[in-house]
Amino acid sequence: MAKNLYLASASPRRKELLELTDLEFQLIQPGDIDEEAILRNHSGDVLDQAEFLAREKGRIALEQGVSGIFITADTLVIADDGTVLGKPADELEAGMFLDRLAGNWHTVATGVALSENIEGATPRIESVLETTRVKFAPMTDEEISAYIATGEPYDKAGGYGIQGRASIHIERIDGCYFNVVGFPLHAFWKLWKKFTSAKIPC
Amino acid sequence: MAKNLYLASASPRRKELLELTDLEFQLIQPGDIDEEAILRNHSGDVLDQAEFLAREKGRIALEQGVSGIFITADTLVIADDGTVLGKPADELEAGMFLDRLAGNWHTVATGVALSENIEGATPRIESVLETTRVKFAPMTDEEISAYIATGEPYDKAGGYGIQGRASIHIERIDGCYFNVVGFPLHAFWKLWKKFTSAKIPC
Repeated sequence: MAKNLYLASASPRRKELLELTDLEFQLIQPGDIDEEAILRNHSGDVLDQAEFLAREKGRIALEQGVSGIFITADTLVIADDGTVLGKPADELEAGMFLDRLAGNWHTVATGVALSENIEGATPRIESVLETTRVKFAPMTDEEISAYIATGEPYDKAGGYGIQGRASIHIERIDGCYFNVVGFPLHAFWKLWKKFTSAKIPC
Repeated sequence: MAKNLYLASASPRRKELLELTDLEFQLIQPGDIDEEAILRNHSGDVLDQAEFLAREKGRIALEQGVSGIFITADTLVIADDGTVLGKPADELEAGMFLDRLAGNWHTVATGVALSENIEGATPRIESVLETTRVKFAPMTDEEISAYIATGEPYDKAGGYGIQGRASIHIERIDGCYFNVVGFPLHAFWKLWKKFTSAKIPC
């Protein structure tokens, strides 16, 4: 593959997961986006917002004028009452999020977009949405406090990381595990194969 | 917890996963066991063999005469025709395993046992069996060859590691992810809480 491949994401977890594909890529800083402003122009289902945001991030990456293929993604954690649980601002919010998740199922939705900007060709964006259902075990107040004390909740959508110390409280998942970590590897791989062979006439 | 806790397993993945619990433990070499001989004396369902083997490993750990609690585990990968897929001996067997898994669901079963040997008390063993369904995507011959070339299949039951380069080929799972890696963290955590509070009169 002669084209440059870029991951436009600040998430260390996405970088680690993408490395599992053995594709050669470089990290670039994602452009600043105002997610709330973007979502005000989006009238779709809450699940679709993740794919919409991934595509918007792709569009912004293309505007930087660099030649290549850009990978962008957005992960949303959605409680079963439809509330989107972002990154908790403080201990109190982390506690409220975990209290809501404990004992219940919730949904993790990740949108992944591939955006291409090659000289002489029309820029294009293709994307995929992957959803996974996650079931937390009931947690005691002591377990919630102990988990918050690890510091893990703060930089993570929904206030937990399945790959970290929250793992002992996750009863089961239904769907792609890596999607819950933040990057749905198989869905990406399928999209990648389709995207990079799109020019082969069939 | 004043009692010594030991993980009797040679699996680096089980050690890493157990560290996520924040429990203090030491590694000990598991005793040599002849799994085939043990299973000849076991008349149960193939799924139950994982729990049976974990308990047998626990029994053998207790015989070493060290005081403490021992964690033992056994993971089996079972194709949907009932065949147990062990660690592939060579490239040819790895290819056959992956060809059988690709495009299909299969089951991963892990038994975990806690065995206690404390002076003045009757030794006891408690255990749990966790099963997870795993769906591989269809794989091309090139994808199977490329995966075998990573060297990952050889030390892993079923010939793949979900946490490694096989991740891009796993469409979805239904159940505990960590069980597929080799140690079902939530099931262990539940067993652990029950086991260590068993002496509190209710």
